[in-house]
Amino acid sequence: MHKTAAYAAQNALSPLAPFSIDRREPGPDEVLIDILYCGVCHSDIHQARDEWGGSVFPMVPGHEIVGRVAQAGANVTRFKPGDAVGVGCFVDSCRQCPQCKAGDEQYCDQGMTGTYNSRERATGAPTYGGYSTRITVDQAYVLRIPESIPLDRAAPLLCAGITTYSPLKYYGVKAGDEVAVVGLGGLGHMAVKLAVAMGAHVTVLSTSESKRADALALGAHAFAATRDPATFKQLARKFDFIIDSVSGEHDYNAYLGLLKVDGTMVLLGIPETPAPVAAGLLISKRRKLVGSMIGGIRETQEMLDFCAEHGVASDIELIDIDQINQAYERMLKGDVRYRFVIDIASFDKAA
Amino acid sequence: MHKTAAYAAQNALSPLAPFSIDRREPGPDEVLIDILYCGVCHSDIHQARDEWGGSVFPMVPGHEIVGRVAQAGANVTRFKPGDAVGVGCFVDSCRQCPQCKAGDEQYCDQGMTGTYNSRERATGAPTYGGYSTRITVDQAYVLRIPESIPLDRAAPLLCAGITTYSPLKYYGVKAGDEVAVVGLGGLGHMAVKLAVAMGAHVTVLSTSESKRADALALGAHAFAATRDPATFKQLARKFDFIIDSVSGEHDYNAYLGLLKVDGTMVLLGIPETPAPVAAGLLISKRRKLVGSMIGGIRETQEMLDFCAEHGVASDIELIDIDQINQAYERMLKGDVRYRFVIDIASFDKAA
Repeated sequence: MHKTAAYAAQNALSPLAPFSIDRREPGPDEVLIDILYCGVCHSDIHQARDEWGGSVFPMVPGHEIVGRVAQAGANVTRFKPGDAVGVGCFVDSCRQCPQCKAGDEQYCDQGMTGTYNSRERATGAPTYGGYSTRITVDQAYVLRIPESIPLDRAAPLLCAGITTYSPLKYYGVKAGDEVAVVGLGGLGHMAVKLAVAMGAHVTVLSTSESKRADALALGAHAFAATRDPATFKQLARKFDFIIDSVSGEHDYNAYLGLLKVDGTMVLLGIPETPAPVAAGLLISKRRKLVGSMIGGIRETQEMLDFCAEHGVASDIELIDIDQINQAYERMLKGDVRYRFVIDIASFDKAA
Repeated sequence: MHKTAAYAAQNALSPLAPFSIDRREPGPDEVLIDILYCGVCHSDIHQARDEWGGSVFPMVPGHEIVGRVAQAGANVTRFKPGDAVGVGCFVDSCRQCPQCKAGDEQYCDQGMTGTYNSRERATGAPTYGGYSTRITVDQAYVLRIPESIPLDRAAPLLCAGITTYSPLKYYGVKAGDEVAVVGLGGLGHMAVKLAVAMGAHVTVLSTSESKRADALALGAHAFAATRDPATFKQLARKFDFIIDSVSGEHDYNAYLGLLKVDGTMVLLGIPETPAPVAAGLLISKRRKLVGSMIGGIRETQEMLDFCAEHGVASDIELIDIDQINQAYERMLKGDVRYRFVIDIASFDKAA
């Protein structure tokens, strides 16, 4: 056992605070990772505050984990001590169902084992995430981080990166395609960078003109403010693909009208209330409204290698662990460009 | 000009009644067709009663037309007098846009020219449909009807057949796939026959148990009543593909829950009010909610040849033209198995 410093929520109402957890000695197929950085995903807040129900407390959030291998089990062939590695949203799955066999472990029939707020398949013990200094994970669920990517800026790739890369690849977005990105947060800013790197012509659709400069700085080729109703006329039937990263309530039909014949709109966010969809908008142009959730291990590795090749990394604000509660408050106001990442070395300062 | 007997609605409130129209002498690329049968589509009622707005009166409905070539223009190579031919939902399109060039004329950027309730591209003259004894159409928009299909039972293939065949093909439904057909009307019964012919395992989902025997008689392998809430639990995550042929209000989310990972639900009907869609149902299993509208000329020919090869034809009730208004009333009550087809020879009796 490795006594490990962490930050945990004790219940849905308590702020995150120091906590001590035990990390198991790595088994023959496992690695023990010294965590260096952990991204802060909006879903950390939802789960720490039990907004989706069923949260397991105490909870140590964090599923955008980057670190270096400290110890490797006897059967571990893919990694050796010192290697830069990552852990994303899950650390296990059934490995038997059609999705697991196809490398789509995120859609495991038995449910993936979340990196935190979940339970180990063998023991039922709660899983604890990356707001901590160490983690033990089966090598089959560990990613190799190319050394050319700054490790702090690599962390959000493990969730925000793969969540946007996966649908772009699944739906075959290619050079010259017209792609719209709705919403410019943690997911949206990665969608822009990845779609641009794939050669697409990228337009950011965001509520107000104030985001224009940011969008263009991220590499987008165009911007349109969705508060201006003219936008929806001017851009009618323009896009092959729309990545909708917004989780607040919004009008799907307005965006569906921006798709060409055979165009696809992928939803990444889950508004509280289901939004009406006008069948005629889908039927008249053979449009598709689809969803996508993170990505499998093989595809996540492919995404990391793609990012290294194309010089893509997240734009982040690095914080100390004792700033995490403030960071949550700022995220709730949309005040972050574009992802907070915890410098896990700050645990030493805090100790 | 060919003086031609027809039945027309003079306005949105008038029943259909005898009317005389002129059919043009076929141009060099056109054929004059003696109509033998015309199917009665639910959209005929919507348009004759101007329920979608913008109807052109007087209106001669009918876009499931089967007949024999009477005259062929000088450049017509594909057909000769006496050939059994069909005309579906459109008789022209721009022929220049990406969709027209790809054979998806139904999604023409300039809008297809409807077989009726539309206007000729060159002259702006209203188009008149198949509730008439003759029609003149460009050979590029005429289908060859395989002689092995009874001609009266071939008529509904031109709309109901292609509307269900096209999404089955587009989404690659194949032998062994689990397919659900929601609603057992004109479209639904064709979806069952076509999906069965493709080798799929087909389940009919319809409101009440009373349709079970009909569904199985059509070739479906299973049936479930949607009024029974247990259906939605028992069939959760069962289907690769759902064809939703219902145009009344219904709960898309209940059906989305029946799709497997990567499953697709295709909408063919347009409820008056847009229905709410829960993003989580799409995201958690990478499901797809899509639309599809009839099919292109090349694909319609492929469908007809497929039907001939597999012995597929519509189940119909043959009526005389003077029964058309009663037929509309029965259709509004869902009282038809499964498509009315007008015996155009009955115009002679009526005369």
